[in-house]
Amino acid sequence: MQISIELDSDSQQSLQNQVFESIREQILTGNLKSGMMMPSTRLLNEQLGVSRNTIIHAYDRLIAEGYLFSKKTVGTFVNPNLPDVSLRLMREVSSNTIQQTKYSEEQIYKRQPVAFQGRVQALFNPHRDQLDVDFWVGRPDPKSFPINIWRQLTIKNLAHSGSSMTEYHDPAGIYDLRNAIAEHLRPARGINCNPEQIIIVSGIQEALNVVSRVLIKQDTSAVMECPCYQGAAYVLESYGAKLHPVPVDNEGLDVSQLPDKETALAYVTPSHQYPLGATLSLERRLRLLDWARDTGAYILEDDYDSDFRHQGSPLTAVAGQDKYGYVIYMGTFSKSIGAALRMGYMVMPEELVEPARTAKALMDNGHAWLDQAVMMEFITSGAYLKHLRCIRRTYLSRRDCLIEELQNNFGDVQLSGLEGGMHLVWHLPESLPEAKEVQQIAQDAGVGIYSLPAAAAHDFGKKGYRERALLFGYSSTTEEKIRYGIARIAAALK
Amino acid sequence: MQISIELDSDSQQSLQNQVFESIREQILTGNLKSGMMMPSTRLLNEQLGVSRNTIIHAYDRLIAEGYLFSKKTVGTFVNPNLPDVSLRLMREVSSNTIQQTKYSEEQIYKRQPVAFQGRVQALFNPHRDQLDVDFWVGRPDPKSFPINIWRQLTIKNLAHSGSSMTEYHDPAGIYDLRNAIAEHLRPARGINCNPEQIIIVSGIQEALNVVSRVLIKQDTSAVMECPCYQGAAYVLESYGAKLHPVPVDNEGLDVSQLPDKETALAYVTPSHQYPLGATLSLERRLRLLDWARDTGAYILEDDYDSDFRHQGSPLTAVAGQDKYGYVIYMGTFSKSIGAALRMGYMVMPEELVEPARTAKALMDNGHAWLDQAVMMEFITSGAYLKHLRCIRRTYLSRRDCLIEELQNNFGDVQLSGLEGGMHLVWHLPESLPEAKEVQQIAQDAGVGIYSLPAAAAHDFGKKGYRERALLFGYSSTTEEKIRYGIARIAAALK
Repeated sequence: MQISIELDSDSQQSLQNQVFESIREQILTGNLKSGMMMPSTRLLNEQLGVSRNTIIHAYDRLIAEGYLFSKKTVGTFVNPNLPDVSLRLMREVSSNTIQQTKYSEEQIYKRQPVAFQGRVQALFNPHRDQLDVDFWVGRPDPKSFPINIWRQLTIKNLAHSGSSMTEYHDPAGIYDLRNAIAEHLRPARGINCNPEQIIIVSGIQEALNVVSRVLIKQDTSAVMECPCYQGAAYVLESYGAKLHPVPVDNEGLDVSQLPDKETALAYVTPSHQYPLGATLSLERRLRLLDWARDTGAYILEDDYDSDFRHQGSPLTAVAGQDKYGYVIYMGTFSKSIGAALRMGYMVMPEELVEPARTAKALMDNGHAWLDQAVMMEFITSGAYLKHLRCIRRTYLSRRDCLIEELQNNFGDVQLSGLEGGMHLVWHLPESLPEAKEVQQIAQDAGVGIYSLPAAAAHDFGKKGYRERALLFGYSSTTEEKIRYGIARIAAALK
Repeated sequence: MQISIELDSDSQQSLQNQVFESIREQILTGNLKSGMMMPSTRLLNEQLGVSRNTIIHAYDRLIAEGYLFSKKTVGTFVNPNLPDVSLRLMREVSSNTIQQTKYSEEQIYKRQPVAFQGRVQALFNPHRDQLDVDFWVGRPDPKSFPINIWRQLTIKNLAHSGSSMTEYHDPAGIYDLRNAIAEHLRPARGINCNPEQIIIVSGIQEALNVVSRVLIKQDTSAVMECPCYQGAAYVLESYGAKLHPVPVDNEGLDVSQLPDKETALAYVTPSHQYPLGATLSLERRLRLLDWARDTGAYILEDDYDSDFRHQGSPLTAVAGQDKYGYVIYMGTFSKSIGAALRMGYMVMPEELVEPARTAKALMDNGHAWLDQAVMMEFITSGAYLKHLRCIRRTYLSRRDCLIEELQNNFGDVQLSGLEGGMHLVWHLPESLPEAKEVQQIAQDAGVGIYSLPAAAAHDFGKKGYRERALLFGYSSTTEEKIRYGIARIAAALK
């Protein structure tokens, strides 16, 4: 017998693939009936005019996958055991691949419901490519990435990697890196911890997931700063937490409004409140620690951009002021080195180390080895501190330039968040329109500046800052661009 | 007045730090009273015999952190606003750092409960360093990692990285890599998909988390192979899934035992069932797809080691046989390149793409950029296919060597899982003790072989395979070591 196979010599598919697909399709649509004998490879080779090996390999694959079976010295047959239902169902659709045909009405079958309808935080301005100057928040200077040292350390570690690249490692991270971070945290943030308390994560976002898995159940109460970082609010909420917003003023979280009721944790950004920029005062830090002790709540300290302190010495982290192990500390290299590294760490109170390590293991079996090895040497060699000193100077100059330009163009501006970090907040004067409108005018003029909702801040629908606050990230913008950008905004607003 | 500060010139801490810490401690313990005036820096400099700058910097930090405040031309004072409760509490503990003192009875305060008590999967033999030969499962040959190409591509991509290292990228992964994977999957696994359907994850473990977040609620039913991979069972269970085990025989999952009731998903390993090694027959694949259509359940296809097919041609994945979008496909580079890379991918049915992308974004803001860029070129340059061809040959020889040695030493052994992958299963003859005992005897002889529970397999407490099956991973062990290891086991068992 002859079977109908059309080959297209211009197709991107190999001839063998075309033969395979065509026969497979005809079996599934019932053109080639269960149990029927197939033409010999020699016959098909003559019929199609392609090499016999092509046919043999196509048959081999069809046999391997179970569409055909061969009886020695007898021949090759269509598998008689294929289930009828499948065949009938397969027949209903054309042989078009799934992404070419949107499901028609009748092709939409029963589906299990999606359990999850989370919201996603903004990571960058979706229009960033159309901007001349972008004051997006929390971006390191693109020229600051330590390419040379990174290359050198990568080459070195790759060379003697051996099984390090092929095997799994401790899901909590390689010990030497955790040790290097513990050593770094002591002088840098006043935190005294063991390497065992440190878990390497892919950034604070993953750390928030680890904490959520360990502490959050449906309707667990969690205190949030209001306004706060979107990514934190959305992830805690996605695990079922009931968020309890507590207002922020110019000293940071208003600790007098902390709730009396049972609360699993309070998420705070004491070094440089996100988004408003306040540094939490010592008095409030101590009261926050008191509250934790009274209620048993954990303090979730997000120390995202504390490496940049522009006024005075670096502050001790709340975790460094905590003697009882109430603080879960989260640090990141996203701001100090680069977000695309996806590396950070968390310091867990002792009783949470094991659950957190388990959660991290179940989440992704731990962090990539090479980056950990490179980071470890980057820190222990002193290159990290040198890198920090260098970009701290750059960011300080840029901050000063931005303040000056805002003053030059808009007079006595009301600013907050100046003491540290990578962004500041301009509280708009009444003479100017609302933040959203100013943002749009600036964007139309090619300059990205951001009202709270646009800058990945979450305000629980509360009025106030949303209307009057604009965020300016200055760390990734040269002074020339800062001057140009602010002048453009001033011109556009006139 | 004089205050008491003891300095230790042999300490690792700087003198400035010692002055800072000592004053801070004395404020918190109440030795230095709220509101009292501090000695001038000149006085303290004379008293302690350290440079005045040291004192000035320590004071600056104490002022910056809010312990002290200074009135112009008057002097420096202890902050009178520090909360009493904290001071009183601080007084209760010694100044020892937290990790040096285990909490005493009275120091254990109220804590929020841990919501999570997950189980952790085994990633390697904890005694691996004491073994001469380790047949642990799923480990790539440590010498196979493509160091040279990896270095070359890393250097190239780092050189022109610019903002790529400092910025966030698409949380679903960089488009070019997703495109390269889509192109690879078409011929390699028969899967037709768009790059948009692909999400880059840090491995199948993370993919399982994304799926769990999207589809699992408390008590959602999930079909599992029995026995199955521990990491899958434990993670689904940790999200609240009710696991429904369905037995596996030598054709893979027994599809006739799939439940009629509402089920969110069925987790399967069709290419090379983990742990038993069966390849799911075509008939069963089609019946599985029928079942998915009837019940609306998703099929969660874990294709962990499908790159290694030792008999016949590579099989089309179930995702390639699915015309209706019921299959969530998960692939990994952990087995084909190296587990320490922590990179894999998932192909989502269209209606799950957005929820999965959101879940991934909330989980960790996406994968590290550099590894993605390198992997993209590794695939598109053809180096990946070349690498696969090369290690496929190595693993086939090792498999054959292992089979031969088992036969030479133990006669007519009953083996399964030979058609592909990186491990096989020896079903012990009745003349030998139980798997756990044989494993222990081998381990005492310096050879790692694994019964199901030891090899990260989960059998839901069901009897059968646990007692009689032993897993041998052969991919990371040289033929010389295979011969030596099997001989050692044979000798030890005599």
